[in-house]
Amino acid sequence: MSEVLDLAIELIGRPSVTPDDAGCQALIAERLQRAGFTCEHMRHGDVDNLWATHGSGGPVLVLLGHTDVVPPGPRDAWASDPFEPEVRDGVLYGRGAADMKGSVAAFVVALERFVAMHPGHEGTVALLLTSDEEGDAIDGVRRVAEVFRERGQRIDWCITGEPSSKRTLGDLLRVGRRGSLSARLAVRGLQGHVAYPESARNPVHQALPALAELSSRRWDEGYDSFPPTSLQVTDVHAGNGANNVIPGELQVLFNLRFNPHWQAARLEAECESLLSAHGLDYAIHWHRSGEPFHTPEGRLRETARHVLAEFAGQAPEESTGGGTSDARFIAPLGAQCIEVGPVNASIHKVDEHVAVSDLERLPDLYLGLVERLLSSGATRP
Amino acid sequence: MSEVLDLAIELIGRPSVTPDDAGCQALIAERLQRAGFTCEHMRHGDVDNLWATHGSGGPVLVLLGHTDVVPPGPRDAWASDPFEPEVRDGVLYGRGAADMKGSVAAFVVALERFVAMHPGHEGTVALLLTSDEEGDAIDGVRRVAEVFRERGQRIDWCITGEPSSKRTLGDLLRVGRRGSLSARLAVRGLQGHVAYPESARNPVHQALPALAELSSRRWDEGYDSFPPTSLQVTDVHAGNGANNVIPGELQVLFNLRFNPHWQAARLEAECESLLSAHGLDYAIHWHRSGEPFHTPEGRLRETARHVLAEFAGQAPEESTGGGTSDARFIAPLGAQCIEVGPVNASIHKVDEHVAVSDLERLPDLYLGLVERLLSSGATRP
Repeated sequence: MSEVLDLAIELIGRPSVTPDDAGCQALIAERLQRAGFTCEHMRHGDVDNLWATHGSGGPVLVLLGHTDVVPPGPRDAWASDPFEPEVRDGVLYGRGAADMKGSVAAFVVALERFVAMHPGHEGTVALLLTSDEEGDAIDGVRRVAEVFRERGQRIDWCITGEPSSKRTLGDLLRVGRRGSLSARLAVRGLQGHVAYPESARNPVHQALPALAELSSRRWDEGYDSFPPTSLQVTDVHAGNGANNVIPGELQVLFNLRFNPHWQAARLEAECESLLSAHGLDYAIHWHRSGEPFHTPEGRLRETARHVLAEFAGQAPEESTGGGTSDARFIAPLGAQCIEVGPVNASIHKVDEHVAVSDLERLPDLYLGLVERLLSSGATRP
Repeated sequence: MSEVLDLAIELIGRPSVTPDDAGCQALIAERLQRAGFTCEHMRHGDVDNLWATHGSGGPVLVLLGHTDVVPPGPRDAWASDPFEPEVRDGVLYGRGAADMKGSVAAFVVALERFVAMHPGHEGTVALLLTSDEEGDAIDGVRRVAEVFRERGQRIDWCITGEPSSKRTLGDLLRVGRRGSLSARLAVRGLQGHVAYPESARNPVHQALPALAELSSRRWDEGYDSFPPTSLQVTDVHAGNGANNVIPGELQVLFNLRFNPHWQAARLEAECESLLSAHGLDYAIHWHRSGEPFHTPEGRLRETARHVLAEFAGQAPEESTGGGTSDARFIAPLGAQCIEVGPVNASIHKVDEHVAVSDLERLPDLYLGLVERLLSSGATRP
């Protein structure tokens, strides 16, 4: 069994349902310390974070990952136990196999090899792990980034191991992410009996034209390689199931995924102005999950494009689609960020898996990136 | 203590939460049998119905009421136990005091007096009681009306004792009711992640323009003394509280209160045509609670107007407002229907009550109506 498969199996065997790290980071820290890394455990609340560095000064390259996984759901829905990883027909099954214990194992193996081969490499290579990527994402990388800001920790490049590939390893390079902004809207009316609508004010009726306008608005036509900004109503609730009571309040959740045309504050102002223009009596609570980030053409993207082209046999699609990732917290520190990882088809689902052949090529992929960025011996771009 | 107060207290003391009659009808039947009435108990499912008649042939005058009450809610919210009626400062408190055990007690006392004073009255005077007015209203008067239809039971006039008065006893005469039609609408979309709206179909977004149109439509300008037809959305539900999932389905309840411009079938067709015009993928389940009814000018309204004017000191407001009542099931048998009862301010609330002075005048009010309709000795209109 290969070294990376071995480590991936060991990590998946620890049921680290978010925000529980279940000992993954201690195991990794022990290995990296043996390899010469300096390890700092940064525990905040229930969340474990690990900051392991090798070398000193700039440029600073960070490999970013998480040890937590989403809950597996009912055991019976899985062909094998989600926390007893199993290889069947060349495929490794288990919760976290693709998102992202496979990548984390590959990071560790790649880093060990890199510092063994290039003990005097340029700048700093680092690994940042959290156990709070799948959960609230408050005490994880968000909190660590605050500490970095206070310390003046420089980060030039950040490579996140999120499963980005679509069909084959390396076919997609993520070069940015949309921002995410959530709203909890309460529209107040006046409860009453349906027989006496003149004595009530139906908050659903009041809100419908505003919500129709909000949900049909075209916010922009996209930005560079970003898709257009999109607003989705994800939850609406009013009433208690009775057909003779006009409800007193309507509660709505909606979420905006937005490209760099916008910042959260401007979107909030636009939405509130629209709601007010409709004369609604409302309260709104905003949650900013992250501003959008975009890594422009430069050394990191260029390097990644070359390495991935070697692996996939053709240049990768460079995309800004998909959800959010912890890179949103690192990008505002001034870092160029990309995301490269295994095929994402099975993530968050039952029978999550990764092809063993992909997993076993992943350390070389990350090693190739680190070498090109931090080793002057490697002269290719 | 007066006879009607005595009986009202005895009835309120029986906790007949719908559809439980709790022995009220047996008590009443015993009294009316002693007075010469023929009593038929018509039990359907969990529901008790009582049909008590005196006399024979036409015209047939029915006093219509119910012995069930709505649940009292928490005992602590009441100043005194809802099922231990109490008179304080000239007011009788207890669940059902106004809706409508006070009226039922007054019916019984009025009928006893009427047949004692007019043993050979014209036609038939009858009392119809159910224990399923506040609940499903399936095995109550709806079912009894079906039996009446099969038997060919003639009904000329029906006086419901629902609490119709606004401020003083007799200030309002109800001469019709709007129809009620409820819809359970499910709009189907396609669930997905908010980050990938192009792979999902948000049923909330799809439905919003249709619901906005439905809820803002002006159905008519009213009919005779009826208010305009009104549609109210009473319940909307979509989503599971997450802000990153586009829901797969939107569920909506709405209710129409409609005047005789419309019949339920035509309203259903209008709504479905609107939903289809918006291209929605939907399923709709209709519940017809009752067609509207209207008692035109005639002997019953004229008689009631005179009797109420005597009681209230001025002619009553003649209205078709408010909710529905069991009269909706009797009207289609060809009966003229009116509703007259005590002040309705406290019904369905805590500390439900009726003024003892109103309660004690109620038997005379009903007796006056019955005498004018069925006793040739009473020559006033």
